[in-house]
Amino acid sequence: MELLEQRIRRDGVVKGTDVLKVDSFLNHQMDVALFEEIGREFLRRFDGCGVNKILTIEASGIGIACVTAQSFHCPVVFAKKSQTKNIAGEVYTTKVESFTHGRVYDVIVSQKFLGPRDNILIIDDFLANGAALEGLIDLVNQAGARLVGAGIVIEKAFQPGGDRLRAKGVRVESLARVKSMSEENGVEFVD
Amino acid sequence: MELLEQRIRRDGVVKGTDVLKVDSFLNHQMDVALFEEIGREFLRRFDGCGVNKILTIEASGIGIACVTAQSFHCPVVFAKKSQTKNIAGEVYTTKVESFTHGRVYDVIVSQKFLGPRDNILIIDDFLANGAALEGLIDLVNQAGARLVGAGIVIEKAFQPGGDRLRAKGVRVESLARVKSMSEENGVEFVD
Repeated sequence: MELLEQRIRRDGVVKGTDVLKVDSFLNHQMDVALFEEIGREFLRRFDGCGVNKILTIEASGIGIACVTAQSFHCPVVFAKKSQTKNIAGEVYTTKVESFTHGRVYDVIVSQKFLGPRDNILIIDDFLANGAALEGLIDLVNQAGARLVGAGIVIEKAFQPGGDRLRAKGVRVESLARVKSMSEENGVEFVD
Repeated sequence: MELLEQRIRRDGVVKGTDVLKVDSFLNHQMDVALFEEIGREFLRRFDGCGVNKILTIEASGIGIACVTAQSFHCPVVFAKKSQTKNIAGEVYTTKVESFTHGRVYDVIVSQKFLGPRDNILIIDDFLANGAALEGLIDLVNQAGARLVGAGIVIEKAFQPGGDRLRAKGVRVESLARVKSMSEENGVEFVD
């Protein structure tokens, strides 16, 4: 997605060869006009696939998922990173290792909001190791829902998550695929 | 906001006299079509106030804030509940006690995204004790930004937060104000 790659080149900040900070427009400050373009692009790629619900994970996926859901005319469910007393009843639960935060989270979704009749599009801001995405897919499978695919804003294609999941048959659509990056040369994209 | 009160009456679940579960449309599964109506109502109430940025707090405020920001044509910044290594540089920080989670969070915003030229509308899903809202106001004040007001989806008007903040001069606009609730009689609204 050219508009997104331009924005990453302009406003993304590379730290070392592994950290890409896009907090000025994607995951701390959020440019919702850009999110609208992102949502339309996800619709273009997944139109006609019968998506009736979008699944994401707190926190930084939520904004992109909600704006994308406007294009799909469907609700969003976000998986929560720890159990709170305000989620009553039965939940699907999985574990996700966050490399950013250096810990393992219990990630849960209420069984009320994910079930066998659902055709799920997973939306998230980043795909690197694939741990979060695998956790969300595990929740979809536990629910007996059908996974349509995953829409990712930025994939670190030099990390193994995306290719491992594609090899398992998951349809992963990433709008910007980073081939490599460095503080000297900035970000290089796949293709 | 009549549409919202109807939805709370229909789909909200009261536990005891204090817990109102709206997780089927507001803060776990999210009805983005309703969020669009909510965003337009916030614009109606705060139009012409010069809002150039919306501030919210993770996680459940983010979706509402992003959809509302489409009406205001401005970006969103969400305050984060704990420091991650991906926020570099200087941050404003405050402490917020969560009664839902039974703990105190450090809440932070990067200084890059909140400053003296900003006219801030705070958006959140719930107002009860007012702890989260007071924390966000503290961040706005630390930044030297101007607080336009706070747009709240559901205020538990029988708890002290809203009135305490209004008495301090904060403009608080709540779209549904719950006067009382019980499992037997459901939700009663102010007015």
